[in-house]
Amino acid sequence: ENLQATVADIERAAVQGAQIVCTQELYRGQYFCQTEDHAMFDLAETIPGPSTEAFSAIAKKHGIVIVASLFEKRAEGLYHNTAVVLDADGANLGLYRKMHIPDDPLFYEKFYFTPGDLGFKVFDTKFGKVGVLICWDQWYPEAARLTALAGAEILFYPTAIGWHPSEKSEYGSAQHDSWETIQRSHAIANGVYVAAANRIGHEGDPGGGIEFWGQSFICNPSGTILSKGSTDQAEIVMADCDFSMLNEQRTHWPFLRDRRIDAYGDIVKRYRD
Amino acid sequence: ENLQATVADIERAAVQGAQIVCTQELYRGQYFCQTEDHAMFDLAETIPGPSTEAFSAIAKKHGIVIVASLFEKRAEGLYHNTAVVLDADGANLGLYRKMHIPDDPLFYEKFYFTPGDLGFKVFDTKFGKVGVLICWDQWYPEAARLTALAGAEILFYPTAIGWHPSEKSEYGSAQHDSWETIQRSHAIANGVYVAAANRIGHEGDPGGGIEFWGQSFICNPSGTILSKGSTDQAEIVMADCDFSMLNEQRTHWPFLRDRRIDAYGDIVKRYRD
Repeated sequence: ENLQATVADIERAAVQGAQIVCTQELYRGQYFCQTEDHAMFDLAETIPGPSTEAFSAIAKKHGIVIVASLFEKRAEGLYHNTAVVLDADGANLGLYRKMHIPDDPLFYEKFYFTPGDLGFKVFDTKFGKVGVLICWDQWYPEAARLTALAGAEILFYPTAIGWHPSEKSEYGSAQHDSWETIQRSHAIANGVYVAAANRIGHEGDPGGGIEFWGQSFICNPSGTILSKGSTDQAEIVMADCDFSMLNEQRTHWPFLRDRRIDAYGDIVKRYRD
Repeated sequence: ENLQATVADIERAAVQGAQIVCTQELYRGQYFCQTEDHAMFDLAETIPGPSTEAFSAIAKKHGIVIVASLFEKRAEGLYHNTAVVLDADGANLGLYRKMHIPDDPLFYEKFYFTPGDLGFKVFDTKFGKVGVLICWDQWYPEAARLTALAGAEILFYPTAIGWHPSEKSEYGSAQHDSWETIQRSHAIANGVYVAAANRIGHEGDPGGGIEFWGQSFICNPSGTILSKGSTDQAEIVMADCDFSMLNEQRTHWPFLRDRRIDAYGDIVKRYRD
């Protein structure tokens, strides 16, 4: 099953030299949110639970940091789309709970997941300050900004996004480009690395469903893509990220210096009408 | 001089069917901020003043909206980098004063311009709700968001950005790509059109100076570029923008629906430390 397969993949990445590893979103199985089905709640696990136990052990064994995306059961009738960050000694550094929850045809996440209540966080790992945001969060510049302002050097986006096959020929290219562009823009605006780990493969109704578009990537703080996966092959996407260059990056592109914090108050409004 | 040349260009655009026209940043002459020189303050004009009088007349004559970027003298010793929006009847709908002021080698704008004090605004013109931001503002997702939340259907960015010739071969491509990417991302995040009007040509020290990179563009709310200028030719860059599609765009990509306004308060902090 996916837990064992993912453990094997992570170990393979560690052997190849990975220091921080991130899974795809809800790695443990198929993307169950294509329907609203109460039976799917049984797929959730607690934290700590089977995934964190297994991942903590291999984090410690290989001395690597692991960011794992889980379907969290927090209490009876209270579930989250959650990422856990395990440090290189196996310690659980804490959780990020997906703050922005989508609800669109075949992405019925508002049925399953309570919006996160932990805010935008950074995790001080052995190999750097890691921010984690999840999928739909990627469309929100506020999420990236707040995570960067907390000190993140890299933003991880475990993701499950793809094409509706019926739309792919007309809109597919622009949809994927929007997705890649907005995440690259978070790197640029904030002077951080960004790593997006997306799902591959077709799931769901053979005549419909979702064709996850893969193309996981890692980009530098200029938004330049350092490494990118295919659309349809399971693979490890890896890049060297040099966090010691962030100060030079941000003094040459001094965006943080000039933010008009006196004038941003209305960001907390729904609309300025 | 540039006032008459720009009037002629705007009339040419109007004849070609333009409804809303935007000038490059500080259209009236060379980009004087390459040095800190008190004599340059004499280049400023008042509002109303020569530019607004001339542009108001041709706005009315052709029934078009004009967004003009000016060096504004507001009072003795008080200057701004300002855009004025003239409606299709020639009326002055108001000013936007550049909020984020850069200061970097050959872009010594903090010497000249007091940061704007009018906030992020929208102008309800005959042809649509227009937001205006200026150059350095383009790197700030907050500026685009706040302008979109005020109702803007299109964001104009009069701009003067280019390469340091000595850096161009090594960094030039990534620099331009960052600039285009971040502005396209504002279109995507906010479901608005974006139009960036940039300067062309080399100015300043023949052995240094700035090579303005042109490539003005207009993109749709998916970030897809509809029209794009060259790097080195003075030209009119024009595209059809259909504001009536914004509701469909935003209900299919319902980002505004899910903003976590309860969790964005720290955006007004300098850093979350």
